[in-house]
Amino acid sequence: MNDHLFYMHRAYELAAKGWGRTSPNPMVGAIVVKNGKVMAEGWHARCGADHAEAMALKKAGAKAKGAVLYVTLEPCSHYGRTPPCIDVIIRAGIRKVYVGVLDPNPFMSGKSVKILRKAGISVEVGFLREELTRMNEAFNKWVRTRMPFVVAKTAQTLDGKIATLSGESKWITSKASRDLARRMRFGFDAIAVGVNTVIKDDPVLNSVPAKRLKKIIFDSDLKTPVHARLFKGTRRDDVLILTTSKASARRIRSLGRKAEVMVTPAKESRVDLRRALKILAQREITAILVEGGAALVGVALKEGLVDKMMVYVAPRIMGEGLDAVRGLRVRRLDDTVELKDISVGKIGEDILIEGYL
Amino acid sequence: MNDHLFYMHRAYELAAKGWGRTSPNPMVGAIVVKNGKVMAEGWHARCGADHAEAMALKKAGAKAKGAVLYVTLEPCSHYGRTPPCIDVIIRAGIRKVYVGVLDPNPFMSGKSVKILRKAGISVEVGFLREELTRMNEAFNKWVRTRMPFVVAKTAQTLDGKIATLSGESKWITSKASRDLARRMRFGFDAIAVGVNTVIKDDPVLNSVPAKRLKKIIFDSDLKTPVHARLFKGTRRDDVLILTTSKASARRIRSLGRKAEVMVTPAKESRVDLRRALKILAQREITAILVEGGAALVGVALKEGLVDKMMVYVAPRIMGEGLDAVRGLRVRRLDDTVELKDISVGKIGEDILIEGYL
Repeated sequence: MNDHLFYMHRAYELAAKGWGRTSPNPMVGAIVVKNGKVMAEGWHARCGADHAEAMALKKAGAKAKGAVLYVTLEPCSHYGRTPPCIDVIIRAGIRKVYVGVLDPNPFMSGKSVKILRKAGISVEVGFLREELTRMNEAFNKWVRTRMPFVVAKTAQTLDGKIATLSGESKWITSKASRDLARRMRFGFDAIAVGVNTVIKDDPVLNSVPAKRLKKIIFDSDLKTPVHARLFKGTRRDDVLILTTSKASARRIRSLGRKAEVMVTPAKESRVDLRRALKILAQREITAILVEGGAALVGVALKEGLVDKMMVYVAPRIMGEGLDAVRGLRVRRLDDTVELKDISVGKIGEDILIEGYL
Repeated sequence: MNDHLFYMHRAYELAAKGWGRTSPNPMVGAIVVKNGKVMAEGWHARCGADHAEAMALKKAGAKAKGAVLYVTLEPCSHYGRTPPCIDVIIRAGIRKVYVGVLDPNPFMSGKSVKILRKAGISVEVGFLREELTRMNEAFNKWVRTRMPFVVAKTAQTLDGKIATLSGESKWITSKASRDLARRMRFGFDAIAVGVNTVIKDDPVLNSVPAKRLKKIIFDSDLKTPVHARLFKGTRRDDVLILTTSKASARRIRSLGRKAEVMVTPAKESRVDLRRALKILAQREITAILVEGGAALVGVALKEGLVDKMMVYVAPRIMGEGLDAVRGLRVRRLDDTVELKDISVGKIGEDILIEGYL
């Protein structure tokens, strides 16, 4: 491994420290290197905190003069929650900047590199592209399309069943799988479920470690029980119930004490998922984990709104039972929803299959 | 790794050369070692050929005198298709024998070790137990229970579907998966399918490389088409159709020209699977690969006749479609059929999940 890759990989590791905390910003890591020595490290720890470059340069202080900067993502050139990083870099006297990947925003991409070069700083771009792009896959999509990155999660038997015919589903997968699933929630801004899942499974929908996750319920008829467990310990604006004009004023009032109830445009008398996601994106929700039920996952797949699947498979066979995906009907084999970039892992005896749409 | 494990592992590799050729005998490998040098190697190449020990000792000739023998399986002490190996070992002047695992036959297990020891030969038993037991899992079951080792194979989508609602199933999995599946057939004595699979998919059911596999059709009503592709290039006794008394004499006659048609006892007006398997075991069929359809796999699972599942999973989602397993209805989650010793691998973008019942 050459030095650049080594330092960029370290910057990548630093960036990863921000996992689950930086939204709607991306994860970014940075290192200041001089004479083959690391002068300072930085990362974007959470939304509102210093950007990675700013943190590293602050720590490096005067030592940054004549040094080299490694940064996983193209530095920003605009005033946002913090001042533009390129000013900080120029002022610090950095001699050369190695940039992992360019800003995914088509209006910004490459802009900062140009400005830095004009300021006489040498810039090289393009290291660990694959890892760095994947790391911020949610941010990248959101910034380009103004739609959230949607991950659909199912927990099923080997033959694709999520419950017995009588509805028993606790638990298909092992404790280890369920623990992992809770830890994975931390990487998201919001967890979404259909109202039937709330009624049948009554999930808490918390993450480990705890985090103020937005809990979103798709509830066209506004049937969410007022005493659902997911309201436990949440503030009113932690829960968002998306409903349609079918919802009664009385129900809107009573649930409105516990959650924000939003009446959204309907499509085939259900909440229009695409439009709902657009609204969520406007609220800076960049990454949503859809945890079921089968109907919600089915609609999301059917409308092409899912970016990634996470399928927890328990090594058991049920035969007849409730399907993991409902409402998705293909006419021909070629019409099935195909996943790519498949990765597979074992969690004890369970299997986790991940893939992109 | 100590020397014993090293040599035993080499013997294991030699044994594996017989894969798919030794039935109804087990795979066995043997090495003759003297003064830290391998004098000769042997393996059971196919049923009827020399046993591994006999082959190795023949090759070693006079050099076997005072040498050490490594053999993966306890040598035989009875006349079968070849003379007893313990006689050959004693005559060759072997000083010490390392035995991987004992004879799985409860009536024979340990017998040869005793005889060898009585003959003044030192014997140590128990090396690579797990690998050597798994290697001959089919033989082990057959010899102990006089039932074949049954592997059920399915090729399904991630959500457990094997065909669209209209029956389109070609192809769910990738070419690489199907090629592998054909190569895996070589390890079996027989491939079994339900008649509906013959009618709908018209499979050839050959292995790669080619081998005289017994093709077995479960066909309670004797509906197998006379011109089914699986008859191509087969001799009459390569195909066995198991039917019930519901079969018409005329159909028995016409199919009887192409295959052996056996009228077997019925259970719920279908071929009684357990009794059928018993008959097959008597015919020295030790390992059967059940390739579907969903109903046959369902019955086999329901009656507890499956030893192992091989599930080829294509990374696609179908939603509504035909289930991989039919006729298996569980009342409670605890009643699902559980698999253990799960192994997972990728075949291109497909996934192969294997597990034991």
